[in-house]
Parts: sequence; C-alpha cells; structure tokens
Amino acid sequence: MAEYPTSTRAIVTTPPKDGAPTWAMQDISLRDPSPNEVLVRIVASGVCHTDLAISMVPPEYGMLFPKVMGHEGGGVVEKIGAGITHVKPGDLVLLSFDFCGADDCYNCAGEKPGFCSRFNALNLMSEAGVYKNGAGEAVAGSFFGQSSFANFALVKERSALNVTGLVRSEDELKLFVPFGCGFQTGAGAVTETARVGDKDSIAVFGLGGVGMLAVIAAKIRNAKTIVAVDKVQSRLDIAKSVGATHTINTSNFADLKADLDKAIKEIVPQGTNFNIDTTGVLPIIEAGVTSLQGGGQLILIGIMNGLTLNVDLSDLLANGKTIRGCIEGNAKPAKFVPQLIQWYHEGKLPIEKLIKFYPADDFEKALGDVHAGTTIKPILTW
Amino acid sequence: MAEYPTSTRAIVTTPPKDGAPTWAMQDISLRDPSPNEVLVRIVASGVCHTDLAISMVPPEYGMLFPKVMGHEGGGVVEKIGAGITHVKPGDLVLLSFDFCGADDCYNCAGEKPGFCSRFNALNLMSEAGVYKNGAGEAVAGSFFGQSSFANFALVKERSALNVTGLVRSEDELKLFVPFGCGFQTGAGAVTETARVGDKDSIAVFGLGGVGMLAVIAAKIRNAKTIVAVDKVQSRLDIAKSVGATHTINTSNFADLKADLDKAIKEIVPQGTNFNIDTTGVLPIIEAGVTSLQGGGQLILIGIMNGLTLNVDLSDLLANGKTIRGCIEGNAKPAKFVPQLIQWYHEGKLPIEKLIKFYPADDFEKALGDVHAGTTIKPILTW
Repeated sequence: MAEYPTSTRAIVTTPPKDGAPTWAMQDISLRDPSPNEVLVRIVASGVCHTDLAISMVPPEYGMLFPKVMGHEGGGVVEKIGAGITHVKPGDLVLLSFDFCGADDCYNCAGEKPGFCSRFNALNLMSEAGVYKNGAGEAVAGSFFGQSSFANFALVKERSALNVTGLVRSEDELKLFVPFGCGFQTGAGAVTETARVGDKDSIAVFGLGGVGMLAVIAAKIRNAKTIVAVDKVQSRLDIAKSVGATHTINTSNFADLKADLDKAIKEIVPQGTNFNIDTTGVLPIIEAGVTSLQGGGQLILIGIMNGLTLNVDLSDLLANGKTIRGCIEGNAKPAKFVPQLIQWYHEGKLPIEKLIKFYPADDFEKALGDVHAGTTIKPILTW
Repeated sequence: MAEYPTSTRAIVTTPPKDGAPTWAMQDISLRDPSPNEVLVRIVASGVCHTDLAISMVPPEYGMLFPKVMGHEGGGVVEKIGAGITHVKPGDLVLLSFDFCGADDCYNCAGEKPGFCSRFNALNLMSEAGVYKNGAGEAVAGSFFGQSSFANFALVKERSALNVTGLVRSEDELKLFVPFGCGFQTGAGAVTETARVGDKDSIAVFGLGGVGMLAVIAAKIRNAKTIVAVDKVQSRLDIAKSVGATHTINTSNFADLKADLDKAIKEIVPQGTNFNIDTTGVLPIIEAGVTSLQGGGQLILIGIMNGLTLNVDLSDLLANGKTIRGCIEGNAKPAKFVPQLIQWYHEGKLPIEKLIKFYPADDFEKALGDVHAGTTIKPILTW
C-alpha cells in the first residue's frame, strides 16, 4: 500500500442507475503526488450541475468508473510534487479547471485556457488509478484536475491557485470555493465575455449560482437594465436583492418562447444588448435570440445535450446578432479568481445570500435542496 | 420645375419582372438639397450585390418604385444644404451608409453605426420624391443615403465622408468608391470584427469583392493561415496573388458541407479560428461552423434570405464557438475609410487586381461580367 499512502473519505461515483447518478461516501486511498501535482487537504467543495451531468454519462462514452467528482474545491496544501514551485505546504489554494498551457495550444497561448484544445480530456474525462478502494480496485480521479469531493485531493499544478494572502482564513476560503467554476462562469460571462457596460441592457435566464453571479456582475458593471428570469419566485426575489432591476417569472407562461420574448420587450422595447442563458431550455434560448436588439449577443452557458437551435440567418445578419458558447466565462482563473476575491472584500459580491453549507456526509440532502429550489449553491464542508 | 432644378442621368429601377431586376438609364431631375443633404457630382459608383438583391424586393414589402439604387459612390461636392458644415463645394467625398447618430441610439452612441436601430429605414428603404422623371412622376432616392447610380446625387450628411487631402485625384477617387460598402465590409470583418492576429487561421468563403478584401485584410494582419474558398479557379488565383496561403476549389465537391470541412481540416487540422462567409450558401455556412477550432468564430456577411441554420448547441457550448452576423464590417466609416486609403497608399491594398471600370451606360455588361465571374468588382464611371 505504499503506493497509496494517504487515506481519505470521498464521494465515489459508480455508473448511473435507473436514470440517476450513483454517489456514495467511502474510505479510499490516494497515491503520492506526481511531479506536477499538489496534495491538498480539502476544506470545502461546491456542488455544481456539471458534477451531476458528467456522473450521468455512461461507461460506453469512455468514462471511467468508479471515480471521484467535485470541481469547486478549496483547501490547504499538504505536500507538493517534485516539479511544483508556485505553492508550498501550508498555502491556501482555490481549485479551478485544468488546461494544457502549451505554447502551441492556440487558446492557452492566447490566455483563453477555457478553450484549451485538451480541455475535455483534462477536465471531463478522469485519470485512472488515482485512488484504490478497500477492495483494492482502482478508482479514477483528477476530475477537472482536482476531484475535490474528498477530504484529500491530488490537484494538478494549473488547477491549484495560490490565494495565500488574498484569503483571510480557512472559513473565508469555504465561501470562495465556487469561484473556481460556477461563480467564475457567471461573472466572467458578463465581465470577460460580454464586457457589459453602463449603457447595456441584459437578461439572465436561470437563477442558479451561475445566473446569480451574472446578475451580480452586471450590477458591478452598472448595467442600465438587468432582467432576471426564472420560474421560482424565491430565486427572483434574491436576484432582485442582489442587483436585478426587473424580474420575469416564467412559471405561468403558456408559450415559453413567445411569452418570454414579449415580457422582455415590455421592459426593454428595443430588445436587450445581452442575454445570458444558464438553463439549456430550447424555447428560452430561442427567445434569447429574438429578444436581442441589433448588435446584441446571446451567450450560452447552460448545459445542453443534443439540442438543435434553428437560427434564422436573415435575422442574424440583418440585425448583426451573435450567438456564442462560453466556457468558464472566458476567464483566466489565475487573474479572475483574485478579482472575485477583491470584489467580495469591497462588498460587491453578496454571495452569502446564495450559499448554504452542508457537512460532506449530507451531500444527498444538499442535492435534494438544490432540486427543490430551496438552496442555490450548496457547499460541502470536509 | 424650380423644385427639381438639377438634371441628371440615372439608372432607374422599376419593379422586378420575370424574376429579374429592371434597370434602365433615364434622364430625371433632382430636387434641391434639404438642410442635411449635399449635392454631389458622382464620378464613379461601385456595383454591389445588395443593389441587385434590393432591386428584387417587390412593392408589397413596402419598397418604393421607381427609384435610383447605388451605394458605393464617390464624387465632388457641388452644393450643400443649410445645415452642412463638414464639406464645402469642391471637396472630394466618398459615400457610405447612413445612420441616425442619435444619442439615444445604443449602437450609434457606441460607435457601431452599422447596427443603428434605424439602419434598414435609412439605407434599404428609399425616400419618396427625391427625383421627378420626364413624365412628372416621383422617383425615390436616398438609397443608403446616396442613390449614387446617377451623375448627380443628393447625399445625406452622415453618408458623405470628406476625403479632401486624403485622396490625390478624382481618378484615384474612382478606385476607392467600394471603400464605402463592399471593401469596408470585407476588410472590416477581419480587422474590426474578428480582429485577426498573427497566430490566427482564417478561411474566407466566396471571393467577390467582399471576400477578396477579407483575404487582403487577413494578410495585412499577418494571419498565419489564410484559406480562400471559391468555385471559380480564376478568383482563387487572384486570391493567392493578394494574400491567400491556401486555396480550396469547391467546384467538384459532391457533398459541399462535408468536403469543405474536410478540405479545411487538411490545411488546418485543429480547425480555423475564424471563418468568414460571403456566399450565403447553407452547406458552406454549415461547414463554417464544424470546421472551427475551439473558441472560433463564424462571421456571416453574405446575404441570406429565409435560410435557417440548424445549430448543434452542444458543439457551440462545449467548443465555445461563436456565430455572428456582421453589417458593414462593424466599421465606423469616418474612421475606417481613411484607414483603407492609408493602407492603399502604403501599397497594402492591391485593389487594382479586383476592379474593372465601365462607362455607366454599360451597366448591363458590368452585371453580366460579374455573373460570368470574369469581373470581381465593377465600377461605373459617370
């Protein structure tokens, strides 16, 4: 067992059953860090829709099982691999996605690591044999370079952001773990992708953690009109309290596309300059195209499997509209996560309103609360 | 007749017949300039596909007939309206599109006049009663703020760019008239919209005047790979001589989408960073999406009537792709037309290879030559 010297509790994912992901807390063992890895004691890890979505992709698609998910971790460095120089034991780290960083990777070289040509391989597929379970079977890890649904995690070099000195305490660190993915994605879509300004009208579709951060970021940018759209009134109320100037409750819409388009234009008669979709719901996305003003952009963040959007090219051309997919907000974590921390310290990120902490053992309750709409952003503490 | 004191020859467009536009040279009379108009003696006017396309839109769509088209004019100021201060009689002007310029027009205020909320009204629809014909009937004008298929034109204030001092002679001015629309559109798509850089691979679909300027602009930006795509070999040869690093001849493709995608990836295995479509042909546009690298952009310039593109949203999201419509290259003519003139004087715009001059009376021959593929950019001289 010397090869797997570190014991840890971890949420282990086995293949989906009866249309649902299968997660279970287990004791497993972790190998020593490779030269480009950091062993991190995880203090908290956010739960994101992507964890569930990828848990549902069956082995036939090349996914390894069993494995450990989790990609919004934060913790304290315990041990570093031979090639690591940017963190040392005792440092506080926030964990984000991995990327290749190669000079010949167009998007890594261009400071857009979210579009790294190896993104899927490094983040969505797992790495074999990172752990062993009690039966001696290999358990896969390195999900998003971290697999942070565990007390201890082996984190790839580029996924570990050193925030020592920026974050005031381990307790504060727990609040910030969604900066590594969901909150970065929502805020980055507004400030790094759309680059919303004070003359802009923006609508945000779907008020999970990603959508809420888009609303908050739009307020930081002093957007003229911020329309928050959801079907759950309590989320709309929170959105209003964190920056939305208007809300649209879609729960009673008979024709989601037409009614949403109409409701947006009642607020912004000329149409919006930016629409940000976090829902992945086709009629909402369709309204996201039609409700744009000339020159406007629809930015897609929500996960969509197999959806096809029929785009009227005459409209797209004549009105100079843009439809774009956006990964991780187009942000560079090493720059953007410190920006988010700074905004928090300036009192501009009221993320406490969005977060609820759960002991890691209560992960099922956390998932249930998200599903019921009573929790926006669950964070597991270890 | 004092209200219509200026006689001019003009190409007058009547409603389309048998699926073809109807143009005829006539003697008509022009009213005096309104306070925001300039009377210009036209020296040359480029013929653009949009002239033909709009000629084909029947009266049922609110189009006025008879009317004068033409929207790539250049000439000498003869007389100015009471409110005009930026040009005076004798000045050389290049004519571009019109826009409202109002402070409360989001895109005009944001220096993106091509997305002016009144763009269609000011440019595509005509203004009644600008001329009278021999029978005393009203003839519409102000197409793109200029209606420059005429020896004399009444030009809207914002359409008249003062290039006195920038342009060396009336003869040189004749070369530059496509800067007002087609050449601005192609070059602007590359430098103002895509902002292509030296690490970028770009493919340009369709090698009319617009596409050729996209190729030339990509070379000015030192793009790493410039793939020119057309079905006419002579155009591909010209594209190569003005900057394309590779060419693809689609004339023998059995499956236009699949074969084009494959041909692009043989040249750029990871996919292109930018594709620019000037063709409006659906399978080419489809290949323009699939052949993009992660983070890549498809920029649509070609006229498309009623086409619907089926977009795989999973691909758009997972690969962070962008599809955008682009009007007039996203350029601000008052800034970009002088830039084009400067590039010409620096030897960077080999537009002589693209241009053929025709006496205005030979407009039918000019159209025939474009159709036959023997002329890329016809310019009528008055």
